[in-house]
Amino acid sequence: MTVDPARIWTAALLIIGDEILSGRTQDANLAYLAKWLGVQGIRLREVRVVADDMAAIGDAVNALRTAHDYLFTTGGIGPTHDDITVDAIAAALGVPVIIHPDARAILAGYYGDKLTDARLRMARTPEGASLIENPRTKAPGIRVGNVFIMAGVPSITQGMLAALDGQLQGGAPVQSRTVAAWTQESAAAATLAAVEKAHPGAQIGSYPFWREGRTGANFVIRATDAELLADVAAALMTALRDIGIEPVDGEL
Amino acid sequence: MTVDPARIWTAALLIIGDEILSGRTQDANLAYLAKWLGVQGIRLREVRVVADDMAAIGDAVNALRTAHDYLFTTGGIGPTHDDITVDAIAAALGVPVIIHPDARAILAGYYGDKLTDARLRMARTPEGASLIENPRTKAPGIRVGNVFIMAGVPSITQGMLAALDGQLQGGAPVQSRTVAAWTQESAAAATLAAVEKAHPGAQIGSYPFWREGRTGANFVIRATDAELLADVAAALMTALRDIGIEPVDGEL
Repeated sequence: MTVDPARIWTAALLIIGDEILSGRTQDANLAYLAKWLGVQGIRLREVRVVADDMAAIGDAVNALRTAHDYLFTTGGIGPTHDDITVDAIAAALGVPVIIHPDARAILAGYYGDKLTDARLRMARTPEGASLIENPRTKAPGIRVGNVFIMAGVPSITQGMLAALDGQLQGGAPVQSRTVAAWTQESAAAATLAAVEKAHPGAQIGSYPFWREGRTGANFVIRATDAELLADVAAALMTALRDIGIEPVDGEL
Repeated sequence: MTVDPARIWTAALLIIGDEILSGRTQDANLAYLAKWLGVQGIRLREVRVVADDMAAIGDAVNALRTAHDYLFTTGGIGPTHDDITVDAIAAALGVPVIIHPDARAILAGYYGDKLTDARLRMARTPEGASLIENPRTKAPGIRVGNVFIMAGVPSITQGMLAALDGQLQGGAPVQSRTVAAWTQESAAAATLAAVEKAHPGAQIGSYPFWREGRTGANFVIRATDAELLADVAAALMTALRDIGIEPVDGEL
């Protein structure tokens, strides 16, 4: 097998939990994972949020793991009755749930003779899984095929991602650069479209904001090639000046 | 047609935008919409995040609008080339995009003789749509069938939701009540499961946290019936005391 340097590697995230869908908890894993994946040269292409429901989790897992190179899940791997992620993913994959011997050993080392049935739930994995180290609270994450099962608590998930750093195959990281201006984005719309069209391989996103009683916009250029990125930034700044908008090289 | 008071009304949210998937922007619409829907007696059941891509938006719109009573979208309705939500949704519905006469009139009143082609993009809707008032920046939201097309900027979306307050048919709102304790959630796991099982119609979610060097957990009870909610809270507090865990009536 040869590696194609232009191949684009994609990932999806499945966020599992009633607490997100009720609005009680603000998700903080999406943005962190997106940036972490970017560094690995993997693009986050789709995210779904579903309830603590076997069928909803299973359907989403099967749709996303087959459509992308990697699927990450967050939430539902604790010791309580509402933690059903492992069961739902095992069912979706058509494999049984087992007590993983290494996970049992990790928990036994941590809890000693207080390793109750509830705590032992955190050693359950789909059959055929390997473990992801959890430096924060010991109960490990789980890798099964291209599915990475992580915690819902952000500090725990971030520790698990640190353990995976550099371990996944990826492509060229997407880099970004921002040009900004105190302008209504509509005044720059035709210019943005023309500059993007003249530079295949680069995308320009326009993100308006309102601050200090004024209107501004950040124009975010994205490309995998650093030289192309610099060319687009220069071309965009020139084109904005040509229509009387004074740009800033960087984010406002 | 008779109204079934026990009918559950469900909604989905589709968040559209490369800036969310790249991790550049932290979404702030999910939690707000979830709470707003809760007040209307509608349950947010699924959320997806997709890129600024016609096919990805269209596929998600058709999957979600047919699976739920309501579909809300956020993002991609501005004046720039990367704002393709209206085109993607019209294509998914199989209807043309038109310039909505009322939207054109609103923008003409706001921009006067500065109503450029770029700004007129914000008057485009799928054929057959009605408008949702935008008190913040005028360019309206769009309702077409059971799809509600909103802005990406949270303050604008919140204004649009205020305009929709009380307008949508819903059922009994889900209420919640929290019992908490300074305990590892695993110590309460069997108790939580038993109390939930003894009270059909109520769900208990367990959300651990680590603060001030201590471990705690919030146990969130959800039900549509206020009396049931109070019964479950009382039963849970008694059951926790029975196993030596001192509960707090409320969130920690």
